[in-house]
Amino acid sequence: MNVVQKYGGTSIDSVEKIRAIAEHIASIRKEGDGIVIVASAMGKTTDELIALAKQMGEEVPKRELDALLATGEQKTVALLAIALQNLGIPAVSMTGFQSGFITTDQHSKARIKEINTERTEQFLKEGKVVVMAGFQGISEHGDITTLGRGGSDTTAVAIAAQLGWDCEIYTDVDAIFTADPKIYPKAKKLDRITYEEMMELSASGAGVLETRSVELAKKYNVRLFIGKSLETDKRKGTYVMNESIFIEDMPITGISISDDCSIYSMRGMENDGVAVAGLFQLLADLNINVDMISKQTYGDNKCTVSFSCTDAQSRDLDKAIEANEVLKQINIEKQANLSILSLVGVGMATCSGVASKVFSILAQEGIMYYQITTSEISISVTVSKDEKIKAVIALCEAFGL
Amino acid sequence: MNVVQKYGGTSIDSVEKIRAIAEHIASIRKEGDGIVIVASAMGKTTDELIALAKQMGEEVPKRELDALLATGEQKTVALLAIALQNLGIPAVSMTGFQSGFITTDQHSKARIKEINTERTEQFLKEGKVVVMAGFQGISEHGDITTLGRGGSDTTAVAIAAQLGWDCEIYTDVDAIFTADPKIYPKAKKLDRITYEEMMELSASGAGVLETRSVELAKKYNVRLFIGKSLETDKRKGTYVMNESIFIEDMPITGISISDDCSIYSMRGMENDGVAVAGLFQLLADLNINVDMISKQTYGDNKCTVSFSCTDAQSRDLDKAIEANEVLKQINIEKQANLSILSLVGVGMATCSGVASKVFSILAQEGIMYYQITTSEISISVTVSKDEKIKAVIALCEAFGL
Repeated sequence: MNVVQKYGGTSIDSVEKIRAIAEHIASIRKEGDGIVIVASAMGKTTDELIALAKQMGEEVPKRELDALLATGEQKTVALLAIALQNLGIPAVSMTGFQSGFITTDQHSKARIKEINTERTEQFLKEGKVVVMAGFQGISEHGDITTLGRGGSDTTAVAIAAQLGWDCEIYTDVDAIFTADPKIYPKAKKLDRITYEEMMELSASGAGVLETRSVELAKKYNVRLFIGKSLETDKRKGTYVMNESIFIEDMPITGISISDDCSIYSMRGMENDGVAVAGLFQLLADLNINVDMISKQTYGDNKCTVSFSCTDAQSRDLDKAIEANEVLKQINIEKQANLSILSLVGVGMATCSGVASKVFSILAQEGIMYYQITTSEISISVTVSKDEKIKAVIALCEAFGL
Repeated sequence: MNVVQKYGGTSIDSVEKIRAIAEHIASIRKEGDGIVIVASAMGKTTDELIALAKQMGEEVPKRELDALLATGEQKTVALLAIALQNLGIPAVSMTGFQSGFITTDQHSKARIKEINTERTEQFLKEGKVVVMAGFQGISEHGDITTLGRGGSDTTAVAIAAQLGWDCEIYTDVDAIFTADPKIYPKAKKLDRITYEEMMELSASGAGVLETRSVELAKKYNVRLFIGKSLETDKRKGTYVMNESIFIEDMPITGISISDDCSIYSMRGMENDGVAVAGLFQLLADLNINVDMISKQTYGDNKCTVSFSCTDAQSRDLDKAIEANEVLKQINIEKQANLSILSLVGVGMATCSGVASKVFSILAQEGIMYYQITTSEISISVTVSKDEKIKAVIALCEAFGL
């Protein structure tokens, strides 16, 4: 069987774990199998390198930061290849440029333009396990780039797409659940989930897979598997695949929770388009990822714009508002310490009454909810962080999750 | 002025020292200067990475070790480029493959085949300081290679040769001295030394510069300067240049000392060429660097072969001799804990009587000397380690060093 396996984060944070992964690969590998391993940096390495860079001065130029961060994965893959060879498994490490990941030159958030797999395929043909550094590539000018946080998932899915192989993402959770088992212990393990649902769950904080990698898997129809590192029983994990493969009769597949969220409501803004555009430009300049957005218009060409961001980002925003002549004039309300609950399910699109059910459950429980946004396959509401657990339990039980 | 500067070892072993080097470069740089900085890994990084690799198993494949070790320099150059940019100096880091160092594919001891400086020259044209990772390159197949221990000096000299620039090697010693000032405090600082003398001194343990880099500098006529990191007064350092540039009236330029040496004398070997060749093949297989070699023939087609190696290597050799049917039969004498003293000077070639003066001084002082070897510009003798200091002082005073 040919497969791309990705190991990251805490599953690869010590020399002992690298050796354990090598032993695991040696134990599952059969004659003739094609195996590509994508590895990320060891545990906290990336954070440590960023801290080191900051000691060099206030400004950290992104080209240099990328060159620095790329050493993290390069170190892991060399060590893993050494461990594999010591178990008698022929293996070679490959950095981003060696594995032909040509990207745009947007340092720290480069996008893959093309993957030249010539060398990878040559190594595979020679019967070698290819151990590929995740997260990194090279621009057309020959500069080292990185794909941004969580980019190793993207590396794994992209190489799987290019080779036409399945992709297994190994991490420190067992599988995808209907809700976080730490909050709702009765949450059910999902055997399968669609790409769309996984994207909504990832985007709204489930944190197991980066949204972008799921998007890529959907686009190139790469069958994804998510499981716990070193676990061999596939029944314990979750497959992410196309909706058409199976029929889901529950309207809701899962709930994700995103904590430490702030909501701003800007009242009485000019409804001329210019003011609102200016506001979102300001947010973009501050590098604030806005999640929920809503706008309501009322008489006299005025509007109210609401949006959410993380509590941490709201501190930068408060400072910027204070310094902005236009925004200073506006009546701004801010709520902090909120949690966003997102109910996700492809069944929702064809199943009416989900929204009203959500609202009535929260009302029954006496839980206040604030901002609401919806998509074709999801409903998100914000509640006070204190009421989060109560809300999750009530919703899980009502929807049979 | 255009210059290649190399910083290595203890001069670059902390974030503080990287920042200090950046400040130093910022202070010396003038408008229009072309500067290439070659940096090695921070302090003990290389040793730490080797230790990490050994934790992966008994065998450390060289291709993977090279990929692992290359991260050390990559980290330093990225940090140094960040520090420079924070001081307002435009700077870019470059790894071995980015700076176009194409090498042979002999991992861990690759040799440079060609240097493609296109990108480097482009950056220099844009007024940027180029911060280049020393010690590393890339093979024609695209594998990461390293040039072997001390290879950053070679990187610096090679890029200087290619650009036609001078090369300054900054380290933790002030300059080259006639003898080690720790042993002979009255040793004189050398303002200038020839390539040949520097090569002899390096080969016989002066340890400031790798022999290979001096060889390269001589071949391409690169003017070398050796000085203490961050020191701006060039008068405190040493220039290495061609003999023809100046006339040296002292027969001896300096003395170098190499400690912990063992000498083997193999008596009664067959003088058929085969036995001696077999012995040196055994030494090569054990990776033993033989320094002094001498062979004397006597009646009945027998010969005595003597050679030196380090005390540490002699332990491997003793085991190998024990296991070798032929060598076991031979009468072998071994002396350990010796020091090799090498007197070096281009003036020696044209100045007779140097050897006899050396022997008579040692005899006057009652110092026993053993193996002797000579070259055109050097005389080496071994003495007991206990008598080393006495011998160095006597020779320095006699030759006015």
